[in-house]
Amino acid sequence: MAHSATLRDIADHAGCSVSTVSRALADNPRIAKETRSEIRRIAADLGYRPNIQARSLRSSRSMTIGITVPSLVNPYFADMATIIQRTAAVAGYSTLIANTNEDAAELRMALDVMSGQRVAGCIVVPHEGAEEQIAELEVRDVPVVLVDRSVPGFDFYSVESDPYPGIHDAVHLLVQRGHRRIGYLSGPGTTSTGRDRLRVFQDVCLTLGVDGSNVFPGGYEQDIGREGAYTLLDQGIDTLVAGDSMMTAGVIEACHRRGLFIGDDVALVGFDTHPVLALQPRPLTVIDQDVGGMANRAFEILLRRIEGAPPRSRQHRIPTTLEIRESTPYREVEMSKGGRQ
Amino acid sequence: MAHSATLRDIADHAGCSVSTVSRALADNPRIAKETRSEIRRIAADLGYRPNIQARSLRSSRSMTIGITVPSLVNPYFADMATIIQRTAAVAGYSTLIANTNEDAAELRMALDVMSGQRVAGCIVVPHEGAEEQIAELEVRDVPVVLVDRSVPGFDFYSVESDPYPGIHDAVHLLVQRGHRRIGYLSGPGTTSTGRDRLRVFQDVCLTLGVDGSNVFPGGYEQDIGREGAYTLLDQGIDTLVAGDSMMTAGVIEACHRRGLFIGDDVALVGFDTHPVLALQPRPLTVIDQDVGGMANRAFEILLRRIEGAPPRSRQHRIPTTLEIRESTPYREVEMSKGGRQ
Repeated sequence: MAHSATLRDIADHAGCSVSTVSRALADNPRIAKETRSEIRRIAADLGYRPNIQARSLRSSRSMTIGITVPSLVNPYFADMATIIQRTAAVAGYSTLIANTNEDAAELRMALDVMSGQRVAGCIVVPHEGAEEQIAELEVRDVPVVLVDRSVPGFDFYSVESDPYPGIHDAVHLLVQRGHRRIGYLSGPGTTSTGRDRLRVFQDVCLTLGVDGSNVFPGGYEQDIGREGAYTLLDQGIDTLVAGDSMMTAGVIEACHRRGLFIGDDVALVGFDTHPVLALQPRPLTVIDQDVGGMANRAFEILLRRIEGAPPRSRQHRIPTTLEIRESTPYREVEMSKGGRQ
Repeated sequence: MAHSATLRDIADHAGCSVSTVSRALADNPRIAKETRSEIRRIAADLGYRPNIQARSLRSSRSMTIGITVPSLVNPYFADMATIIQRTAAVAGYSTLIANTNEDAAELRMALDVMSGQRVAGCIVVPHEGAEEQIAELEVRDVPVVLVDRSVPGFDFYSVESDPYPGIHDAVHLLVQRGHRRIGYLSGPGTTSTGRDRLRVFQDVCLTLGVDGSNVFPGGYEQDIGREGAYTLLDQGIDTLVAGDSMMTAGVIEACHRRGLFIGDDVALVGFDTHPVLALQPRPLTVIDQDVGGMANRAFEILLRRIEGAPPRSRQHRIPTTLEIRESTPYREVEMSKGGRQ
């Protein structure tokens, strides 16, 4: 089988060492000018294409960054990867993306591949069980910035979302509109995001004087959200806040299956700007994580680290906001009375 | 700044040439056994990690494949990349993904990066203007398999969807259920998929004896689908078939904005299994492209090409199917009569 030309092939043709070829292609003045020209000519004849990283061998760095995301099917992470890539392109960096399927072994392998490809840096959505690989990249001087989540016990650079403002405003809106029994579909207690958001929800309920105990201990999956909605609806709770987009989709599915009209029979605050949440007869009020803000901040920090001017602070938080749409009507005036037009 | 150890660093420490280091690490018997051990020890001390591709320098190949997709935000391509990755992992290959944003320049750059990384092969969703880069990869013996689309005038390996069965069954279902005026939102005439699907729609209408002339010349964007829906609805056409998922989302948006209930006021056949299409009060009947079938076939062909046993046939087609759900009621019995429960 034919194969791409290697430095070895060029060296064989030129009758010199691979080391000389490598230095010649890097335009090293220690190699005679004529030799450099000759080797470049041979390389061109052989169709040699340097590894991207070889072009920047002097710094051992390429103009490519790596991104790992736990899912591409979740639009939140697809958006995040797309925005990071766009920002990186403006700074002259290409982007390679690896999907780790929320699996520590896949994340470890992806980080190995990235490290082997000598990327200039990595933006990583971490999960438990890959801390050592992340630390190893740092030791090898491949800067890493975590995004969306942090890793307890390690002092990595990270950009996370601050759930407080969005959840506060959501509960405040519901209370203001006459809702008193608010059910919450919580993310998994094994994740920092799941724990944080639940704590914030309950703190805010306490502050605003409403019952914060109607919690379904869920997980970041549509099926779990659907079952959680059934459970809370069966307890007579028709005002719901969902702790992530996948559970929100599950609540929507549960309402459709029971013939309940969201924004009429049920008040619902969703999470994230998933297209499913907007494309409903009554578009959903959502707690929006500023995915663009997080993506841009993460790349900005990575670039500063690559360029040797890291920011002083390591943990960064981007506030959530509440985007009010049509799924959260005034309880007495609008719900279960006007019906559907 | 500290940096990762290179072959050069190891050579400097060992007092030998980069060529010797490279051959020693590849366990080349032409290097004395003691030298090989010594160099491996030095490499380990320096924390040297070979490029993934360096491990397979003998064949100039890595165990990594590249995928380029024109969008990650479109769930169809996110699914496709995820499925290819899963199948590749079973065969022992890691996957790097590049998003080309439907832009020929970005695709060319992505293919350059992939080529520089010496991937074992590429699965590419092509767009016009990158034919030469694809051909160049082939010349360099990096096998490429196109998926979703082909490139006219080139004899590349490709896996496409066959729109006929799904579109035929959709029109047939609508006719059987009493619909006679069927509007079609067409994809762009500048794409093979846009042209093919329109041709099939009109052929099938002709065969089944219904009017196939109510066509909105659209594009693969939600806004265009929404405007197309307004246009056709204003002509009194309330039975619609959309030529892709983004336009389907646009039709859904138009109906919601006008207060029209899909599956009651409007009959709608969507395209692809986008989650937005299922998570409606009446889940949509859709023409489903078998994205899993396409992804798996593309990887199977790529693997056979990598292993030097390419399939004889170059163009492969995977049939579409019709998935009947609740958005396509019988016209006389169910539409605009029963109203919403």
